[in-house]
Amino acid sequence: MIAGIIGATGYAGAELIRLLALHPEVSGFALASVSFEGERIERVYPNLWGKIEAALVKPKEAISRSQVVFAALPHGVGEPYAKSCLDAGIPFIDLSADFRFDDDEETFTAWYGKPYTHKTLRSHSVYGLPELNRSRIKELAATKKVIIGNPGCYPTGASLGAFPALAKGLAGPGTIIVDSASGISGGGREPSRAFHYPECADSLAPYKVGAHRHTPEIARNFQAMAARNTAASGEGPSIIFTPHLAPMNRGILSTIYIPLADSRRPDGVFAGAPRPPTKEVEEKTAEIRRIYEDFYKGEPFVRVLPAGIIAASGRVRQSNFCDLSVHLGDAGTTLVVVSAIDNMVKGAAGQAVQNMNIIFGFDETAGLTAIPALF
Amino acid sequence: MIAGIIGATGYAGAELIRLLALHPEVSGFALASVSFEGERIERVYPNLWGKIEAALVKPKEAISRSQVVFAALPHGVGEPYAKSCLDAGIPFIDLSADFRFDDDEETFTAWYGKPYTHKTLRSHSVYGLPELNRSRIKELAATKKVIIGNPGCYPTGASLGAFPALAKGLAGPGTIIVDSASGISGGGREPSRAFHYPECADSLAPYKVGAHRHTPEIARNFQAMAARNTAASGEGPSIIFTPHLAPMNRGILSTIYIPLADSRRPDGVFAGAPRPPTKEVEEKTAEIRRIYEDFYKGEPFVRVLPAGIIAASGRVRQSNFCDLSVHLGDAGTTLVVVSAIDNMVKGAAGQAVQNMNIIFGFDETAGLTAIPALF
Amino acid sequence: MIAGIIGATGYAGAELIRLLALHPEVSGFALASVSFEGERIERVYPNLWGKIEAALVKPKEAISRSQVVFAALPHGVGEPYAKSCLDAGIPFIDLSADFRFDDDEETFTAWYGKPYTHKTLRSHSVYGLPELNRSRIKELAATKKVIIGNPGCYPTGASLGAFPALAKGLAGPGTIIVDSASGISGGGREPSRAFHYPECADSLAPYKVGAHRHTPEIARNFQAMAARNTAASGEGPSIIFTPHLAPMNRGILSTIYIPLADSRRPDGVFAGAPRPPTKEVEEKTAEIRRIYEDFYKGEPFVRVLPAGIIAASGRVRQSNFCDLSVHLGDAGTTLVVVSAIDNMVKGAAGQAVQNMNIIFGFDETAGLTAIPALF
Amino acid sequence: MIAGIIGATGYAGAELIRLLALHPEVSGFALASVSFEGERIERVYPNLWGKIEAALVKPKEAISRSQVVFAALPHGVGEPYAKSCLDAGIPFIDLSADFRFDDDEETFTAWYGKPYTHKTLRSHSVYGLPELNRSRIKELAATKKVIIGNPGCYPTGASLGAFPALAKGLAGPGTIIVDSASGISGGGREPSRAFHYPECADSLAPYKVGAHRHTPEIARNFQAMAARNTAASGEGPSIIFTPHLAPMNRGILSTIYIPLADSRRPDGVFAGAPRPPTKEVEEKTAEIRRIYEDFYKGEPFVRVLPAGIIAASGRVRQSNFCDLSVHLGDAGTTLVVVSAIDNMVKGAAGQAVQNMNIIFGFDETAGLTAIPALF
Repeated sequence: MIAGIIGATGYAGAELIRLLALHPEVSGFALASVSFEGERIERVYPNLWGKIEAALVKPKEAISRSQVVFAALPHGVGEPYAKSCLDAGIPFIDLSADFRFDDDEETFTAWYGKPYTHKTLRSHSVYGLPELNRSRIKELAATKKVIIGNPGCYPTGASLGAFPALAKGLAGPGTIIVDSASGISGGGREPSRAFHYPECADSLAPYKVGAHRHTPEIARNFQAMAARNTAASGEGPSIIFTPHLAPMNRGILSTIYIPLADSRRPDGVFAGAPRPPTKEVEEKTAEIRRIYEDFYKGEPFVRVLPAGIIAASGRVRQSNFCDLSVHLGDAGTTLVVVSAIDNMVKGAAGQAVQNMNIIFGFDETAGLTAIPALF
Repeated sequence: MIAGIIGATGYAGAELIRLLALHPEVSGFALASVSFEGERIERVYPNLWGKIEAALVKPKEAISRSQVVFAALPHGVGEPYAKSCLDAGIPFIDLSADFRFDDDEETFTAWYGKPYTHKTLRSHSVYGLPELNRSRIKELAATKKVIIGNPGCYPTGASLGAFPALAKGLAGPGTIIVDSASGISGGGREPSRAFHYPECADSLAPYKVGAHRHTPEIARNFQAMAARNTAASGEGPSIIFTPHLAPMNRGILSTIYIPLADSRRPDGVFAGAPRPPTKEVEEKTAEIRRIYEDFYKGEPFVRVLPAGIIAASGRVRQSNFCDLSVHLGDAGTTLVVVSAIDNMVKGAAGQAVQNMNIIFGFDETAGLTAIPALF
Repeated sequence: MIAGIIGATGYAGAELIRLLALHPEVSGFALASVSFEGERIERVYPNLWGKIEAALVKPKEAISRSQVVFAALPHGVGEPYAKSCLDAGIPFIDLSADFRFDDDEETFTAWYGKPYTHKTLRSHSVYGLPELNRSRIKELAATKKVIIGNPGCYPTGASLGAFPALAKGLAGPGTIIVDSASGISGGGREPSRAFHYPECADSLAPYKVGAHRHTPEIARNFQAMAARNTAASGEGPSIIFTPHLAPMNRGILSTIYIPLADSRRPDGVFAGAPRPPTKEVEEKTAEIRRIYEDFYKGEPFVRVLPAGIIAASGRVRQSNFCDLSVHLGDAGTTLVVVSAIDNMVKGAAGQAVQNMNIIFGFDETAGLTAIPALF
Repeated sequence: MIAGIIGATGYAGAELIRLLALHPEVSGFALASVSFEGERIERVYPNLWGKIEAALVKPKEAISRSQVVFAALPHGVGEPYAKSCLDAGIPFIDLSADFRFDDDEETFTAWYGKPYTHKTLRSHSVYGLPELNRSRIKELAATKKVIIGNPGCYPTGASLGAFPALAKGLAGPGTIIVDSASGISGGGREPSRAFHYPECADSLAPYKVGAHRHTPEIARNFQAMAARNTAASGEGPSIIFTPHLAPMNRGILSTIYIPLADSRRPDGVFAGAPRPPTKEVEEKTAEIRRIYEDFYKGEPFVRVLPAGIIAASGRVRQSNFCDLSVHLGDAGTTLVVVSAIDNMVKGAAGQAVQNMNIIFGFDETAGLTAIPALF
């Protein structure tokens, strides 16, 4: 199978090349760049030297040669390529935000500043978080007309961390807080002051506090999963999301605070000085861990860690895993879930390959079997 | 003035040497080590070579030669030295947790695993967070009998970030979440797996989730400041504190989530997909920023940053500053404060020097005038 | 095939697990630890969680269950295991220095402080640098009695960088200087002051200057290759090797200075101020690059980079590649070769797998097809 | 005294502000920017917030208000400002290369691509390496017409490392190799691919091999010092200089290989396998260390480290020190000097302040008393 990549010179594109080169079903590439047509990919990325050597072609040409097309483009420019692929019956996996909001164009426009170009494409598109929408992805794949809105990096880690609590009714009313930090590769390949080594090394810095575009995507996912809990009212949780830039190459670590339904502290009541976790708190934690383990049983890429091991971004490096560890805070009133992914793999290119595997009926882990290195 | 340092070979001790060497009122050192007596400090820390050259003496000898004594020792071993200093009328500034809980021995014992050795010393001790207790520090100093319980690193950043909201009645009922990350120097000088370079570089990892010893110290500080808000009920807020280890040498960045009193979202009501911050939210943010600026007017080490600049740990590096930026989340219902300190300076040695300055009536910034380098 | 690993809990052992888990001919592991028998590997290395789960057994048991045995042990303790494997006809691939010096026990003892335990084993052992000894490895493999002395990390990068110049008579008389820097993982898993994050981050530091154990191994390799150049006298070059510790997880970058035979500057003659490289120098560089390309034609893991691209340690990360770039210094009198490897892969575990592949007649790249990520 | 800084928004400019703000003789600033006139410095560098708040003015205005002027500008644009200052009797300290080559315009032009604008200024300029030219700096200062060509970062560390060997006749004929690595701040403030965090973190990479502009500056310094050794012939050494980019914010570590005059290995003679350093080698090393110590006796910023301590870039961080350690390689035939400086301090702004101190007769360490932090 030939895999086409439009936007191959960006970081997500380069990561797709790295992963697909080892995919047992992929025999070759058609690499395209909107702006660097004619350039050679191994000159742009010398790490590929001797392994992948190819000239970048026009998107149109890449599409014509491919059995599947990935688009790693800026938001708002990929819809015409999606349409071409749809018309040609070629699965289109889009890593931008263009197909993440389904037909909620209003929310997309509010955050991304432009309307949809080809609105009707959404009847063939699905938000490609397999743990949420696997069956819908398969349904669309069966029609031979399928567009994947590959999830954002932060929403992937945050959603997988909160899903069991939402689906199983653990989450009570109140705001869920998602406090996340990303490695600098999340900012993409374009140099800028914010990602200039001396400005970001040896420092931790929040950005776009209360104003990051992944906020509505996270909220939508939380609501979608909460809606599956039939015991719950129709209302989903409200959220606060704060992204940080951490001095590391890869990885997203999210610490997620979920007020529990069954043990809410009455407002304003403070029961004296905090005490270390009690045996009861530990037992309750173990119970919630079991719920998480059950929820993700059979999921190939979600690892619920055992007691005593806390998720860390470095331990999923270069893998498609999402590691989760569960904890309790404030005398057991709040669930604290730690979620770790590699922003470029499960948070981008790896999840895109996972979606390709589902679409074509390949083993879902094909090309994604890498074991994370410890360092 | 001769400054004595007991525990001079640990990181906090080394940082005290670095700062005090430039202090205009300090003419020399008496450096002591409980276990490395006889060793030379410039061999332990070659960065001091040619500037500070001294043999480490016994604590008793150091005390006898000093006009002020700093103790940078493990928790639970410094009380006898405190007593010696108190008896001799020498101010004792303790960087361990031993004097941070005043006469609440129960809380200290619950978290640190041992009782006080000389409980009565607490009638001469004060928790040395100048922004909270400056006048009490001066009172005790006037008696010539003063012990400072120098604050923990995380509690310093968290407390300064939340104080104005608590004192001015902005904080409503509900749990305050403190999500913090520290540079690795916070773990001290002793090598261990957790701080071994390949295990912590290029990774972000929470630790002691729901179980860190700084939790009760933060809670106590929040309550102490909330109690100053006469409009408030006697009850202070409950808290959740999650520490992380970030791949950087220095710095603590805390992101603090404070539910607002005046704009609470009714439980369980979700008003649809989130939208980018409105003009109203920006105005409300500006108003809260003014409250923060007013609160810290005249404070030499707290910088409330203007709109458009977010606090970052790297920008207070090697300085005694606490940088604060204020934001709003979830459509304006929650105050998000970002607080940045250098864990070794305002979070430890710098604050200790600040306390020394207050005790002796020196300019509070003496020895602490360093401007943070950008990198 | 079951792969046995003795010393599975060290970093090289862990890296072997990571690589072999994806090897098409390896179906399972027998993991042994001399000191942590009974421990579970996924507890020691949580990054393996859900992929590799196994209890560590005794070395003897591991050997009895394996078709190939890797030993990642401290120097001087593995010979008995080598003997057991030899007797049982199981290939033994040793990552320590024990079998790197063939029958030159004197040099081994001078640098490693102890004599050989079973000296005669060397009639079945070979220094496992495939680019030097591939045919000898195959010869021994055919006898069913084979012990591999897997090369040191620094010697691998240094040797591959200098080999063409030595074999093709480019190197003139005079000392070859090998200036190298390694990522911190090269120091192994045991915590110590030198590898404690705050002591090595954001700093570059030489160590064991003029006294590193890899010096005789590099010298021996240089001489062995120089001896293949029939035009040369019997004398090989003398060397200076300086290792540095660089603030990164992985990688070795060696800058190698080789005086050229054909263009030696007469001693003490200084021809005035240096000038930027001339066209002649560029042409001579291109010529030498061609010699390097020819020399490594067909080698699966050595990449001679084209003009304009300089080798960098980050671009071979997690791959078995050795990247080389060639340059000229001092008006063309000295060849400067830059060599980059991943110290844990081509510098240790990857090369061990490569040796296994040669022994068993597998494709030499089996299990080693990973493309380096850019970051 | 008012200090003027032209080019205040670059990294060297910012570092000058940081250092001069604590200088006892500097009472204020006149900050200028050629291109960012009108901008506020504390917006460009929020780390200055609350300490330095000023609008950037035109260079002309800054000069008119200052008693000393520093220029931290790109190469080739500062001569007119130098002339203005010279005419006005204001010392001009230039951090570009414009005044580093004295009247050797040919070399300057060969490497920097343009001729001098006002060639005659060189009769009032001096290369500002105090350890080489302190008396000449004082002479010029006495005339009230003085321009300092502040040294390049690499040449500072390399020169200080080689000077004693050159001046005392230790260096024999043959090429001196300077292998250096710099922190990323050396690349300046302008974002680019090379300094984009994901491209340079966790990697070590040489650049401009055999072609870096600091090569002729190093060679010139070596020759100037060698010429002071009356026993030597008129010929100075030839050099090779290789710069690397290391993943750290600050610091330059140079490893310098100097063939010794008294113990040259006859060409092509290889005396068998290397052995660990002998007692004789250690004694010879100690002897050379004493020569280095004597040479730098009284120098306030050069620290010759004792046996057992090797220079490391992290241990001079934020200080004006140059740390040196001396070693021997290849059985004592070659001197290996390790030199560490902070590229932004002794390698740029700190040395500029040192030059200011010499010019005005201040204590040479004024404003430069900072003790390096260990981390």
